[in-house]
Amino acid sequence: MVIANPAAEARFDPDKMGKATLARCRNLYAGLNCFEPGQEHKSHVHQDQDKFYYVISGTGEATIGDAAFPVSAGAFVAAPEGVPHGIRNTGDGRLIVMVVMGPPPPGK
Amino acid sequence: MVIANPAAEARFDPDKMGKATLARCRNLYAGLNCFEPGQEHKSHVHQDQDKFYYVISGTGEATIGDAAFPVSAGAFVAAPEGVPHGIRNTGDGRLIVMVVMGPPPPGK
Repeated sequence: MVIANPAAEARFDPDKMGKATLARCRNLYAGLNCFEPGQEHKSHVHQDQDKFYYVISGTGEATIGDAAFPVSAGAFVAAPEGVPHGIRNTGDGRLIVMVVMGPPPPGK
Repeated sequence: MVIANPAAEARFDPDKMGKATLARCRNLYAGLNCFEPGQEHKSHVHQDQDKFYYVISGTGEATIGDAAFPVSAGAFVAAPEGVPHGIRNTGDGRLIVMVVMGPPPPGK
């Protein structure tokens, strides 16, 4: 399965981070986290899933444990299982982040 | 762990596709496949790993099963376990593709 322009799948919600699914396999899930300016996904932990972020467009701040890192288009972030992580749109425009989780989270 | 510019990790080999590792966790592996013009990763199968490609830069052709798809920067490709897949640089410049596998392949 090929998606030529994943950003076109982005879904935004004025009240909270928007989500879209790109692909779900037995061992891997890929989706988009979509942030209006100022929106965030607060720091949280997955006990049984590793997560990678890849910033498709926009500017933000990723937190990994207690450390904060500025991120922009092209940045890669790894949050292994058990490690608190979050991401926040710090820019004036929209932030679109591809999220890959393994194994897929239940119910997604 | 944050890598602001994964493409800077790219490793090219004049004789074959180059590889670089970005991150390896218990359930997920991320790396780069790096192609000089004309180079390819011939169609192959992973019986126990799902694979996602994300094209960071360049132009190529992905094969999934018997179907071929043109891909360029920003394209997403999913190759579930058991599905033959490959990728080829069809452009005049270098092709850099992020590869995510779950679970990580042995020895990588």
